[in-house]
Amino acid sequence: MVYQSTFTCNTRGRGTYNISAQVEQHIHNSGIRTGICSVFIHHTSASLIITENADPSVRRDLETILHRLAPDGDPAYEHDYEGDDDMSGHVRCMLTHDSLSIPVTQGASGLGTWQGIFLYEHRFGHFSRRLTVTILGE
Amino acid sequence: MVYQSTFTCNTRGRGTYNISAQVEQHIHNSGIRTGICSVFIHHTSASLIITENADPSVRRDLETILHRLAPDGDPAYEHDYEGDDDMSGHVRCMLTHDSLSIPVTQGASGLGTWQGIFLYEHRFGHFSRRLTVTILGE
Amino acid sequence: MVYQSTFTCNTRGRGTYNISAQVEQHIHNSGIRTGICSVFIHHTSASLIITENADPSVRRDLETILHRLAPDGDPAYEHDYEGDDDMSGHVRCMLTHDSLSIPVTQGASGLGTWQGIFLYEHRFGHFSRRLTVTILGE
Repeated sequence: MVYQSTFTCNTRGRGTYNISAQVEQHIHNSGIRTGICSVFIHHTSASLIITENADPSVRRDLETILHRLAPDGDPAYEHDYEGDDDMSGHVRCMLTHDSLSIPVTQGASGLGTWQGIFLYEHRFGHFSRRLTVTILGE
Repeated sequence: MVYQSTFTCNTRGRGTYNISAQVEQHIHNSGIRTGICSVFIHHTSASLIITENADPSVRRDLETILHRLAPDGDPAYEHDYEGDDDMSGHVRCMLTHDSLSIPVTQGASGLGTWQGIFLYEHRFGHFSRRLTVTILGE
Repeated sequence: MVYQSTFTCNTRGRGTYNISAQVEQHIHNSGIRTGICSVFIHHTSASLIITENADPSVRRDLETILHRLAPDGDPAYEHDYEGDDDMSGHVRCMLTHDSLSIPVTQGASGLGTWQGIFLYEHRFGHFSRRLTVTILGE
């Protein structure tokens, strides 16, 4: 069996947006009990991560480190057409994930207790980010 | 065909643990000849990598760099409930992988000669880490 | 349905090589309309990324940052058998991707307008890099 569906996440500036419930709903809708759920984001300045879902300070600290590794408006960047968060957004995507593959077990995501699925918006503006969920299994 | 199974890896402190043989065994058990093997780790402070499997100094050097990029006990971290390796563990997971997708070819993993699959434990303590292997194909 | 095929990319030094057209061709050849396309690279010093496909300066800036995060010939490295780009290549692979999972929609890759698939060669020399494309779906 193959299930595929698209959804959008409206972002309001840089940061993490919990999309675990949407992904879980798609798994439920698919009727698939055992398999793989692949989540893909169709952009190059927003990405996906799985991280600790309980304490928001974890995501603030992830941001602290990403900001250090991929500085905004770094003087070494050539590409800066769209501002200081343009090139840093592309670097952040390279260092995180365009897609996630999550096991589907007994008709639900097999995420661990402390795992949440987050869209990571890297730009400062507001965007409508498109994602595709594909679920394969039986 | 869909095959899914769970196994655990008992870690004894930070470092890499070769799980290639376990993954290969699951591929063998599945009876699937051609497809994809997805390995997923259900934790937010241990992750997965594929790297050179021959010389242990490669993994020591990976550790040197990860430690530099995601320092333990960085004064900038807010989140430090569980010690100096708590937040750095989450950063290390973001920079590495929650899941790996490996081709299954002629009933075996299609890994290159020098590729090994490693669980990367980021905490100093001993943990029982749970993984799920899902294999899809025919 | 399962489709699997292998192709090679001949690299001529460090940098990014656009393999989007090859991947698209494999999706076309597979006859699969809806599913997942997994691209895997069988090496530990060349990797895969999805990034902005229009302006080459983006990939030069990605290189600037990767070079900073994973320096060539870093004095801290133990492993340097094959030169200054040996260990840095392994670090770069850890920080990027061994595999990519791309949705297949209406018989084509569901890549966003600005997304391209690139093999990232991390070594200075010329290499023949082997990749496997596995497509699952219907």
